[in-house]
Amino acid sequence: MDKLLIIKIGGNVIDDEEELKKFIVKFSLLPQKKILIHGGGKRATKLAEKLNIPQQMVEGRRITDAETLKLVTMVYAGEINKTIVAQLQANDCNAVGLSGTDGNIIAAHKRINPALDYGFVGDVDSVQIFLLQTLLVAGFTVVIAPITHNTKGQLLNTNADTVAQEVAKAFSKDYDVHLIYCFEKEGVLIDVNDNQSSIQHLNFSEYKRLKQEKIIYAGMIPKLENAFKALTAGVNKISLGKALQLEELVLGNAGTTITYE
Amino acid sequence: MDKLLIIKIGGNVIDDEEELKKFIVKFSLLPQKKILIHGGGKRATKLAEKLNIPQQMVEGRRITDAETLKLVTMVYAGEINKTIVAQLQANDCNAVGLSGTDGNIIAAHKRINPALDYGFVGDVDSVQIFLLQTLLVAGFTVVIAPITHNTKGQLLNTNADTVAQEVAKAFSKDYDVHLIYCFEKEGVLIDVNDNQSSIQHLNFSEYKRLKQEKIIYAGMIPKLENAFKALTAGVNKISLGKALQLEELVLGNAGTTITYE
Repeated sequence: MDKLLIIKIGGNVIDDEEELKKFIVKFSLLPQKKILIHGGGKRATKLAEKLNIPQQMVEGRRITDAETLKLVTMVYAGEINKTIVAQLQANDCNAVGLSGTDGNIIAAHKRINPALDYGFVGDVDSVQIFLLQTLLVAGFTVVIAPITHNTKGQLLNTNADTVAQEVAKAFSKDYDVHLIYCFEKEGVLIDVNDNQSSIQHLNFSEYKRLKQEKIIYAGMIPKLENAFKALTAGVNKISLGKALQLEELVLGNAGTTITYE
Repeated sequence: MDKLLIIKIGGNVIDDEEELKKFIVKFSLLPQKKILIHGGGKRATKLAEKLNIPQQMVEGRRITDAETLKLVTMVYAGEINKTIVAQLQANDCNAVGLSGTDGNIIAAHKRINPALDYGFVGDVDSVQIFLLQTLLVAGFTVVIAPITHNTKGQLLNTNADTVAQEVAKAFSKDYDVHLIYCFEKEGVLIDVNDNQSSIQHLNFSEYKRLKQEKIIYAGMIPKLENAFKALTAGVNKISLGKALQLEELVLGNAGTTITYE
């Protein structure tokens, strides 16, 4: 099967203009078919401040009222997405920027939670890879902003980690998928205070043991649970590490590589 | 040759939520291959007011400093583009929203004008239809926001009428292109104060005569000059009229239809 890299970058890269530029050069040089999924970083929060739209975060999720939805759509699908695409084009990477709404890539529904109204936060229902597949086959690299829709005309704000995972799962029938999460740490850490303590390789039985012995940093647990779900669903390999070590992450020479077996 | 509709909507449709919804239903029902190009309307100006970014318009063009560029990128390529795409999807029209930056569709340069610095306003250098063609062949409808780039990483703000015209010209070798400008008038008017006085059909010799006799409203002259340039470059037919008469405009039963001969 053809290799497909699905790479997610978060706020720590997006908020730092110089780091983003360096990352884009590295990303452009990867010879494989690839999809980049980006979050929004602090830019949405900063714009909300300027516009006096109060923001509320619950466990890292942004409560998304109508004004905030407009704002994240502008910042994620507009400013950040097109800035990244223009920089990729400047590095001879023929990129196309999309949201989950385009080509009905990601259908979602407004989160149902009796205890808390998340507003226009979207939980994923299904992924249609036809548009992405058409573009990859034609030689394009795709950049996805995590704005989705309910297929009835309502835009929704979906977590970028989730978008990356769902897209990776959807492609796993047709490609040998390597999902890479670029984040602020070296990888999965044994000691949360020691950035040198990252585990090089983790499989499910090892993970269960480390979790039972409470060796893994608690904040990593939800990310890892999701990773193993994606692996069970057919994704071949998942890596976590620093954005500027992208090439090494692809090769498995940096960060943590997670496989099922 | 296959028919291709290239339809441009302006601020008067985009600023009116109900009119936009009605237009989208009509647009979705058109059976031909189609591309929608949208301007930005007053939404960018309103957001600029809220953010205290002073705006300056010169002959209908927005002087685009760095802050304004960010703003129009957010509003055009983010909010408006994705709102339109979501509504098209809700009407079973499989739309993909792009900017001129994506797939390097439109390469432009920062406007050179010794008398006035337009800032990040982009004048078109070239159009690459490969991405658009790939999507049309795969059955998608494309929605384009008039944000372009200089191919060196700089986003630019390009007039949407110009984008529509340049895309129409670029497709004219491969398709029977009908370019439709939806605007606030019934068509090309003989008497600017009488919306019933629109000309049904106009060709180049008739236009020259009407212009010489000063029968055509002066404000229409630049639009018509551009229209005849596009026809000379291979576009088959150009129509001007009201957005909510879209079906009739396609059939030539409303508005003004312009052909060379």
